[in-house]
Amino acid sequence: MRILLAGATGKLGAFLHTALADRGHEIVTVARSGGALRYDITDPAQVAAMYQAAGELDAVVSAAGHVPYRTIAEMTPDDYLAAFHGKVAGQIELVRQGISRVAERGSFTLITGVLAREPIPTGTAASMANGAIEAFVRAAAIEIAPQRVNAISPTVFTESLDAYADFFPGMESVDLARVAQAYIRSVEGAQTGQIYAL
Amino acid sequence: MRILLAGATGKLGAFLHTALADRGHEIVTVARSGGALRYDITDPAQVAAMYQAAGELDAVVSAAGHVPYRTIAEMTPDDYLAAFHGKVAGQIELVRQGISRVAERGSFTLITGVLAREPIPTGTAASMANGAIEAFVRAAAIEIAPQRVNAISPTVFTESLDAYADFFPGMESVDLARVAQAYIRSVEGAQTGQIYAL
Repeated sequence: MRILLAGATGKLGAFLHTALADRGHEIVTVARSGGALRYDITDPAQVAAMYQAAGELDAVVSAAGHVPYRTIAEMTPDDYLAAFHGKVAGQIELVRQGISRVAERGSFTLITGVLAREPIPTGTAASMANGAIEAFVRAAAIEIAPQRVNAISPTVFTESLDAYADFFPGMESVDLARVAQAYIRSVEGAQTGQIYAL
Repeated sequence: MRILLAGATGKLGAFLHTALADRGHEIVTVARSGGALRYDITDPAQVAAMYQAAGELDAVVSAAGHVPYRTIAEMTPDDYLAAFHGKVAGQIELVRQGISRVAERGSFTLITGVLAREPIPTGTAASMANGAIEAFVRAAAIEIAPQRVNAISPTVFTESLDAYADFFPGMESVDLARVAQAYIRSVEGAQTGQIYAL
């Protein structure tokens, strides 16, 4: 398949690039800087230009999203808006604009995360954004069929524990290899409206 | 208790006003127009002014939220942003600014809805907003204790079936009286971080 990979330069994105290429797929990488295509998906106009440049696609895979971490007392209205723009709106645009760009039985696979279901202190904006994406995926799935849309909802990556272990005391981590398996399941499988939690 | 009721002039808000007053509570109504206090909670500055005007509070109850309904193909980026501002950001501000305004063991009760878990066509923005609120509630709860925060997540109101039945084929409705019970449970009970789905 010809797969667009958004957020290609992050830790997950780079791993997915290799894992999907190893399955024989052709990967078109997108990132603000460093991808084959350089676009900021938080800007709807840039998503349009990105799809124009990407050509025919069988699947869209996202590992893109940034949210601020701060206690609720320290958060501002702009922080929650930044989380909406940084993780929710851009991924929604990948789907909304992608409907007319992706193959008839093509798929979208978005990224969310464990904070949608298991909170941590300083994580209210992240939880909000992840919950938004998961509910959007369930709703979009019933409208876009036979195209499909799923989300991957991983806990902290084992490979990121050196930086983030203190934020997830006692919570199990997940290896990037297992996360990549869930993306492969979403892209090559036939389910839709699913949240693959791992 | 002295309870601030946001969204007091809607069908649910008006019902809650009576139901909470019948429990012996003092209700301070807020709405864009028609409440005892007239503020637009989607504007953070007006939330600040609202709390200033409201005085001491034991609980905040919200029945406020508007989102656009449209097929995903007809949605625009502005529609999703409108859903964020119309149902998510304002309710988050009620909590964020309310932490320093509400009693030490006071509570917040927000409104979400069945579309967070059960989608309908034209509902992607509504689902997104509801999912955002539910995950926010779980996350905020662990930060604001001993203050509490819960959400009420009702399906279509029996009293609204004349207008909305066609959007919820075969789905059970819920009487406003049952929804009001869930608000009372949240306000007078001791749980936090709960989504009361009904």
